[in-house]
Amino acid sequence: MDLMRTLLPAILCYLCISLGGAQTVLLNNMYGIVHSPNFPEPYPKEREIQWNISVPDGYQIRLYFMHFDIEPSYLCEYDYVKVYSETEELAVFCGRESTDTELVPADEVLLSPGNVLSVAFRSDFSNEERYSGFEAHYSAVDIDECRDKNDEDLACDHFCHNHIGGYYCSCRYGYQLHSDNRTCKVECSDSVFTEHSGQFTSADFPKPYPKSSDCLYRIELEKGFLVNLEFDDSFDIEDHPEVMCPYDHIKVQAGDRELGPFCGDRSPGRIQTESNIVNILFHSDNSGENLGWKITYTATSSECPVPIVPPNGHLEPLQSQYFFKEHITVTCDPGYTLQKDGEKFEHFQIQCQTDGAWSSSAPICEKKESRRSRSSVASVPTDPIMH
Amino acid sequence: MDLMRTLLPAILCYLCISLGGAQTVLLNNMYGIVHSPNFPEPYPKEREIQWNISVPDGYQIRLYFMHFDIEPSYLCEYDYVKVYSETEELAVFCGRESTDTELVPADEVLLSPGNVLSVAFRSDFSNEERYSGFEAHYSAVDIDECRDKNDEDLACDHFCHNHIGGYYCSCRYGYQLHSDNRTCKVECSDSVFTEHSGQFTSADFPKPYPKSSDCLYRIELEKGFLVNLEFDDSFDIEDHPEVMCPYDHIKVQAGDRELGPFCGDRSPGRIQTESNIVNILFHSDNSGENLGWKITYTATSSECPVPIVPPNGHLEPLQSQYFFKEHITVTCDPGYTLQKDGEKFEHFQIQCQTDGAWSSSAPICEKKESRRSRSSVASVPTDPIMH
Repeated sequence: MDLMRTLLPAILCYLCISLGGAQTVLLNNMYGIVHSPNFPEPYPKEREIQWNISVPDGYQIRLYFMHFDIEPSYLCEYDYVKVYSETEELAVFCGRESTDTELVPADEVLLSPGNVLSVAFRSDFSNEERYSGFEAHYSAVDIDECRDKNDEDLACDHFCHNHIGGYYCSCRYGYQLHSDNRTCKVECSDSVFTEHSGQFTSADFPKPYPKSSDCLYRIELEKGFLVNLEFDDSFDIEDHPEVMCPYDHIKVQAGDRELGPFCGDRSPGRIQTESNIVNILFHSDNSGENLGWKITYTATSSECPVPIVPPNGHLEPLQSQYFFKEHITVTCDPGYTLQKDGEKFEHFQIQCQTDGAWSSSAPICEKKESRRSRSSVASVPTDPIMH
Repeated sequence: MDLMRTLLPAILCYLCISLGGAQTVLLNNMYGIVHSPNFPEPYPKEREIQWNISVPDGYQIRLYFMHFDIEPSYLCEYDYVKVYSETEELAVFCGRESTDTELVPADEVLLSPGNVLSVAFRSDFSNEERYSGFEAHYSAVDIDECRDKNDEDLACDHFCHNHIGGYYCSCRYGYQLHSDNRTCKVECSDSVFTEHSGQFTSADFPKPYPKSSDCLYRIELEKGFLVNLEFDDSFDIEDHPEVMCPYDHIKVQAGDRELGPFCGDRSPGRIQTESNIVNILFHSDNSGENLGWKITYTATSSECPVPIVPPNGHLEPLQSQYFFKEHITVTCDPGYTLQKDGEKFEHFQIQCQTDGAWSSSAPICEKKESRRSRSSVASVPTDPIMH
């Protein structure tokens, strides 16, 4: 501390440049004093000095006056102290007390919008009285970016941590800070669904989904099953009125087909993917507060045509639709026997296959010849079924 | 700012020292993160880590937790997070929520009394469940010494200017900062009084006199005059109940004599210095708020004895006392003439001198001799007075 204080006298004229009549003083310290020439003695006539104060990014500059006594003149046209930030004039002061047209700084504290501030002093060729001048103090003040950053696109997604000279962001437990150091992404690409039905949602659904995330949800069923997706009516993905889903979107990859991108607030509804392997890709960018989506999936399988019931026989079970892996047992009325390809059977079973075809065509029912009998049960050689 | 943020990962383990079973991590940055081992994964068993955070003088350390999940145990005897400042234990935390006997940090913000803070983590040999640990953030915060320094003996005498990392003092217009960088002295040694009477006071009287000042007030009259000082009843100089004026005092130097030191609240009253040159020395130390003193001085001069009125003559003016520079004109009754040392005078004047003696003895009045006459007026040769 004492070191800081003993340094004080040294900080006043860190670098002085004389430019024509006006003298320019560069001040790069974190705090200091600016005063009129010869202070506390009266200031000389015909002097122009400009102090350019600059502090690092992440700071503003606070300036206030401890003494002020400058020759008064209408609109401060003779002698004055002006305070600028870059090119913007923040204040003009002269006199010993404020009037309708001229101001003195009094207890006013000036704050630079950015990290630079200039103080300009000027005295004209004559002073009717002797004026003692001014003494001003400045110091860098930390910007609380967490409080001041109101732009949603620049602010921290989850948590903002201010520190002297800067700030940083962090994320809730379970999230990771994106490389933009601002948004919080989730790990959302390790889901593989193998059940015949299920449900999944965007992370945090129905709360807004995480930003800056690329998620892959994979449904992987055995061959012969076809995945059907049903998007919930509650569907909300950031969109754009003219461009097709430029920010966030969900896509469905099913075999060679890609469906989407989908976004907006209209649910894509039901999608029959006609594939047993489906990837759902969800991308979110670094902004937006949209509520996401929910998918319920079911599996359907290949459908086989309803077989023609053989005369004098019947099918068990008798259905209007038959899907992959379903069986039909063919039996004949009493006095008739199953026969196919020259062989006779007590029972005959066919199965609906992956490709939507029956494992075999149905046998026929032939009138029994009482002298002959066969009791073997067989399936077609290409798809044998034992029971 | 972005630079600051990209530096963040690098600040975590600035210097790690392994001491026996416990690991010590030194953190000297202005901000950073401390978290349990493997975070956000569950912490391992049998670990002891201590993070010693230190920031420069002029700062305190703020610590707060963003996530906390430590195995609960009665009085946190198994796993815990402890926060220390030097040797003082500021907090002990464990569990997932606070109970009657154990605390979690929740939204509590811990502030180090000084510029160091330690966080200690310990896990015991077993965890019944998997606990995810903790994440804490710290940052240096500027101490506003101007607000916090309550000790009058250390605070700024007039104005205090806080800045990030420190502070400095300044003085009102007309005062100078003492080399202690804290108190404000006045320039008060350029007063020389040559009038026969006058008045002067401690600076700012009757408000408290400036600290750290050594003032010399000099009264310098021509020889033959004697200075009388009259201290006003309103007298207040910092004193001590046992020691004689160890802090502030006023002294009077008059010729070879030194009077004082005087202090306290009893006026020294009237002092006849018996000297024409008097120095009044006033010393104030760097503390105290005492109201000072006021001196009115007058001059008296050397007194000459009342001369004997010569028979048949008279003195003009006739007074009970005669002082330096006063004259007496001796005249004789009608029919008598002034005579001294064989010479005759119409008038005769004697003067009271510096040393309290008359410039000459008085002449005598002798009966006029009508035939002789002199009209010259003369003074004694040693001290001629013309009129």
